[in-house]
Amino acid sequence: MPKRITLKEVAARASVSYQTVSKVISQKVHVSEATEQRIWDAVRELNYTPSYTARSLRSHRSMTIGYSWRPSPPDQTNPILDEFLQSMFRAAENHGYYLLCFPYHDELQKQLAIYRELINTGRVDAFVISTLNYNEPCVSYLVEHKFPFVGFGHLDDPDSFPYIDVDGALGLQMAVEHLLDLGHRRIAALAWPSDSRVGNNRMDGYFLALDKAGIKARPEWVERGEGTFDVGFTSTLKLLAIADGLRPTAIVAMNDLMAFGAMTAIQQSGLRPGKDIGVIGFDDSPTARYMDPPLTSIRQPISTIGKNLMERLIGYLDTGTYPDPRCELVAPELVIRESTIGKKTSQPIHGKEDADRR
Amino acid sequence: MPKRITLKEVAARASVSYQTVSKVISQKVHVSEATEQRIWDAVRELNYTPSYTARSLRSHRSMTIGYSWRPSPPDQTNPILDEFLQSMFRAAENHGYYLLCFPYHDELQKQLAIYRELINTGRVDAFVISTLNYNEPCVSYLVEHKFPFVGFGHLDDPDSFPYIDVDGALGLQMAVEHLLDLGHRRIAALAWPSDSRVGNNRMDGYFLALDKAGIKARPEWVERGEGTFDVGFTSTLKLLAIADGLRPTAIVAMNDLMAFGAMTAIQQSGLRPGKDIGVIGFDDSPTARYMDPPLTSIRQPISTIGKNLMERLIGYLDTGTYPDPRCELVAPELVIRESTIGKKTSQPIHGKEDADRR
Repeated sequence: MPKRITLKEVAARASVSYQTVSKVISQKVHVSEATEQRIWDAVRELNYTPSYTARSLRSHRSMTIGYSWRPSPPDQTNPILDEFLQSMFRAAENHGYYLLCFPYHDELQKQLAIYRELINTGRVDAFVISTLNYNEPCVSYLVEHKFPFVGFGHLDDPDSFPYIDVDGALGLQMAVEHLLDLGHRRIAALAWPSDSRVGNNRMDGYFLALDKAGIKARPEWVERGEGTFDVGFTSTLKLLAIADGLRPTAIVAMNDLMAFGAMTAIQQSGLRPGKDIGVIGFDDSPTARYMDPPLTSIRQPISTIGKNLMERLIGYLDTGTYPDPRCELVAPELVIRESTIGKKTSQPIHGKEDADRR
Repeated sequence: MPKRITLKEVAARASVSYQTVSKVISQKVHVSEATEQRIWDAVRELNYTPSYTARSLRSHRSMTIGYSWRPSPPDQTNPILDEFLQSMFRAAENHGYYLLCFPYHDELQKQLAIYRELINTGRVDAFVISTLNYNEPCVSYLVEHKFPFVGFGHLDDPDSFPYIDVDGALGLQMAVEHLLDLGHRRIAALAWPSDSRVGNNRMDGYFLALDKAGIKARPEWVERGEGTFDVGFTSTLKLLAIADGLRPTAIVAMNDLMAFGAMTAIQQSGLRPGKDIGVIGFDDSPTARYMDPPLTSIRQPISTIGKNLMERLIGYLDTGTYPDPRCELVAPELVIRESTIGKKTSQPIHGKEDADRR
């Protein structure tokens, strides 16, 4: 092993004091850009051991948060991924942290092995977890080993770990109440399979809203399947085949992609979405507004969630106490467009809406 | 500082040999899962200094690749982000590497400061760079400091750094030739502003294909603007207002979002995309197939690009020599749908296409 370069040698090379080098390297002081560059050049030229690993070795901290997520199927986009990641990156950066991202494995033992390795090798200080299914082994492992993490989403036991989640039940309730306000009484749902925790939570809001309106939800109004365009399409054809007097006049879908499938099925049946049949999606994916007609959808405040998740997690790492609120359900927003209220004008509403947002 | 725990103490606690602990920790051998768990439990219980930082300190390697990308505007989705990230994550994992992701700053000096910090603190061994504009200061900095990176994309000097890029000119050429085959002679382009390197490269293929067919491209056929739905919409209204005999019968757009805007403008003008006016996008975003009519678009082989970028970069880190080919242009694929060939059947083509891909 070559002789270890000292901080003094770096200081001599950069023509600054030992203290200045030390403070600049540990980021405790700001000097002129030229001086800083000269110091870092000296660090590199002398091959001085990077301060990060040395400091990390001393502090047992990696200043790194791990995150992995289930990838979208090839025919779908994850409409919130970019915004969620960027909001976490920015919040982490403000506190000197970075995100280490790693692949998601459907094989749960393999996924668990990565979590174990990242913990055991000290590569991360904490995790964000957004793939929260029943019996998630990674979550049990982290809880059992008392390793810090926050969930974007939550499991049944509300106190098991800190999380932020969107109130999906409230979202569906808002959607159904919007349709009730428009005069609909027969409202169908394109739901996820009954083993989906998130899906069941959203459906609670559907049943609650109908119940509050004194409407008995009929079993044939609820179609279940994976959240794909095709499921939305074929399920809607089934709904439209229900006999007159029971046939739904509006459809709420657990995601936008199923709603897109529903709108295509409605159109191919010679009906008009937003006039003959109301349609509401969930996610407010960027393309929702560009559909014909533009899709009413439920929007999640993703940037706020990503920022708050990261700040609370880092707050915990810094202080040992998780900041309040430990668990939070945030309200989504219903974005109303022509798929429920019909076309009001021949002008495209896109232009105006975009202008408003910039 | 507390007394340093030794490997021997860990071995005693886990009831295995010193050699087994050492090999398991450095991942040079596989033992039974129970034994491995016992070793890691002992490491944790004794608070043994994680091997990763210790090893990293010795080797001057972080086994980490940095990546930052420009976020999508709020009204758009990055259709290739998830697939690109996941393909890089998987390839990196196969070689014991992880990706460290960090925020993108439009303020270039701030962005450059992050690259400098990540290099100077030894947090990353190399970068992937996909935001490659003229005069990109991060690229100049990395080239100047001989710090390893690969580009997804390239700049004008083809030899300046290793990259993989999609042959955008070939993509546009394929698109225009497809329209020529269908009998179109007046073909318009929805182009990016003329300072966009990627946009100019794609437009080269547009001009080449027209030229080869003996058609003189008319200036009024090329509309330029940011790649938004609104620009696609308003530019198409302008194109449709061109006098009979010169009015384009087909439109190629530099991305799907402009093509979506074009289709809406065509429909609102009482014309039918795919019958009266052919439309082609670029990206083959997942929603392209769900438009009405489904959009013909140019697909980039993203998974292959992400995998190859990462494997060549790690090959370079491992051997000091960048594997061949140092620079590569990969061909995109034209995915033909009803926005150019019209509706052939009353059955939804989505179902079949999806079934084929699974």
